[in-house]
Formats: sequence, structure tokens, C-alpha cells
Amino acid sequence: MLAVAVEEARQGLAEGGIPIGGALFGADGTVLGRGHNRRVQDNDPSMHGETSAFRNAGRQRSYRGTTMVTTLSPCWFCSGLVRQFGIGRVVIGEAQTFYGGHEWLSENGVEVVLLDDPGCVAMMTDFIAARPDLWHEDIGVD
Amino acid sequence: MLAVAVEEARQGLAEGGIPIGGALFGADGTVLGRGHNRRVQDNDPSMHGETSAFRNAGRQRSYRGTTMVTTLSPCWFCSGLVRQFGIGRVVIGEAQTFYGGHEWLSENGVEVVLLDDPGCVAMMTDFIAARPDLWHEDIGVD
Repeated sequence: MLAVAVEEARQGLAEGGIPIGGALFGADGTVLGRGHNRRVQDNDPSMHGETSAFRNAGRQRSYRGTTMVTTLSPCWFCSGLVRQFGIGRVVIGEAQTFYGGHEWLSENGVEVVLLDDPGCVAMMTDFIAARPDLWHEDIGVD
Repeated sequence: MLAVAVEEARQGLAEGGIPIGGALFGADGTVLGRGHNRRVQDNDPSMHGETSAFRNAGRQRSYRGTTMVTTLSPCWFCSGLVRQFGIGRVVIGEAQTFYGGHEWLSENGVEVVLLDDPGCVAMMTDFIAARPDLWHEDIGVD
């Protein structure tokens, strides 16, 4: 499942954007929606990787049994998304370069799988070193 | 400030959408962005009133001193938005018809002003009675 999110992140990087990708999977394992951070591409601060995947999945009557896969620990915005819509599981590439709300999700009944993937760590480490300004803008750090 | 959010909510209702509006104000009181729920209009589940206002404000280097005004208590998704981006204050029309994450925001250093506005309560009460299916979809209730 992580491969889809990584592919999205790489596409975002190739477009000159922030390399964070996400995908929402249905209970049967099909991809409902996939997406990547679009701050740079669309000048849109609301399109984090997870939000973009959620959006691209379109309107769903229920999120029961769905899994959100993301290359990076979800920020409070995207963690709130998961909690509000009852997405049951979150699979996270890594939480070394950014530590978001995944513990809070776990405390609130969401199944959290943290993979600690070296490829995801390297991708974000390189990006943050190259574009600290853009990274801080994306997570609201002054 | 609430008048701008109410105007947005009414516009959303007139478009056949969910009547929740928001506006992001700068420290000097100018409107940075305003918007309303666009689930129905754009088939976009990610555009809650507050997210829409945030998006329409475009990319901002800092949210220091900003205020998010919303007709309804922000859900976890929109509460997470406020927390992640360091929006300092939230002004809420009402929290009777829906009780979101505003106490959590208050516990985490956000100034929360809850107005208990009868007009906002009436607008959501009427909407929920007329379209319970759509309302439940919008907040992820099965």
C-alpha cells in the first residue's frame, strides 16, 4: 500500500512540489483516491497529501473499513480529517522528519501502523534540507 | 466578523449546498479569505466552510494574529487546520447543533469565542431537519 503513496510523493517532487503522498484504500483493498501535496502546484495550502487523496476519492457515504496511507506522519489537519470521517486505519511511511497527530489518533480508536521506511525518511530529509522555507510554510511554522 | 461567515453560509444554502460559512481575518481585521461548504456544489468532501476560507486566503507565510470565523463549531478536520497552522483565534456562531473540537483548541492555546447566535442555530436546525442524509455525510456519520 505504501508504494502508491510513495509514487504520489515522487510525482509531487517531480512537479516541483513538496514530496508527500497519500492514498485512501477501501475495505476491499481498492484505491478510492490518491494524491499528493499541491501547495506549490496549485498555490493551495489546503491540499496536503492526505487531504488530496481524500478529495480525489470523491463523496463517500461511509469511511468504515478504509485505510489512509501516507508517506509522512499526518499533521493535525490531516489527523483531524481521519478522526472526523471515521477512517479506521492509518499506515505511515515515517515519523522521524515530522511528528504529527498519529498518537492522538491511536488514543482515539484509529489503528496506526508506523513503518519507519528508510526511503520515505531520505526523501523528506533531502527535501527539508533543500527547501526549509517551503517546508516550514507547509506546516505553519513561522 | 460573524456577518461575513453568515453571508457565506447563506450563499451556500442558495446554491443547494450545506449552509456553513467561514472567513479568515488578518491581524488588522481585513478578510484574507472567505468561503462556504462546497460538498454538493463541487462534489468535494474536503471543502468544509473553514477549509474553504483557508484555501481562498491562498498561501500565507504566517497565520500569526489571524482569526477564523465560522458559523458552526469546527469539526476535528477544521479544528486540526486551526491548530496546525497556528491560527490564534476562532470565533464560532454556535455549537448547539454540532459540537466539534473547539474545547480541544482552547486547551491547546487557541482563543475561542463562542457566540451562541440564534440565527446560526436556526439555519442549521432547519437544514439538518430537511437534509439529515447530507448532514450526516458531511460529518462522517454512518
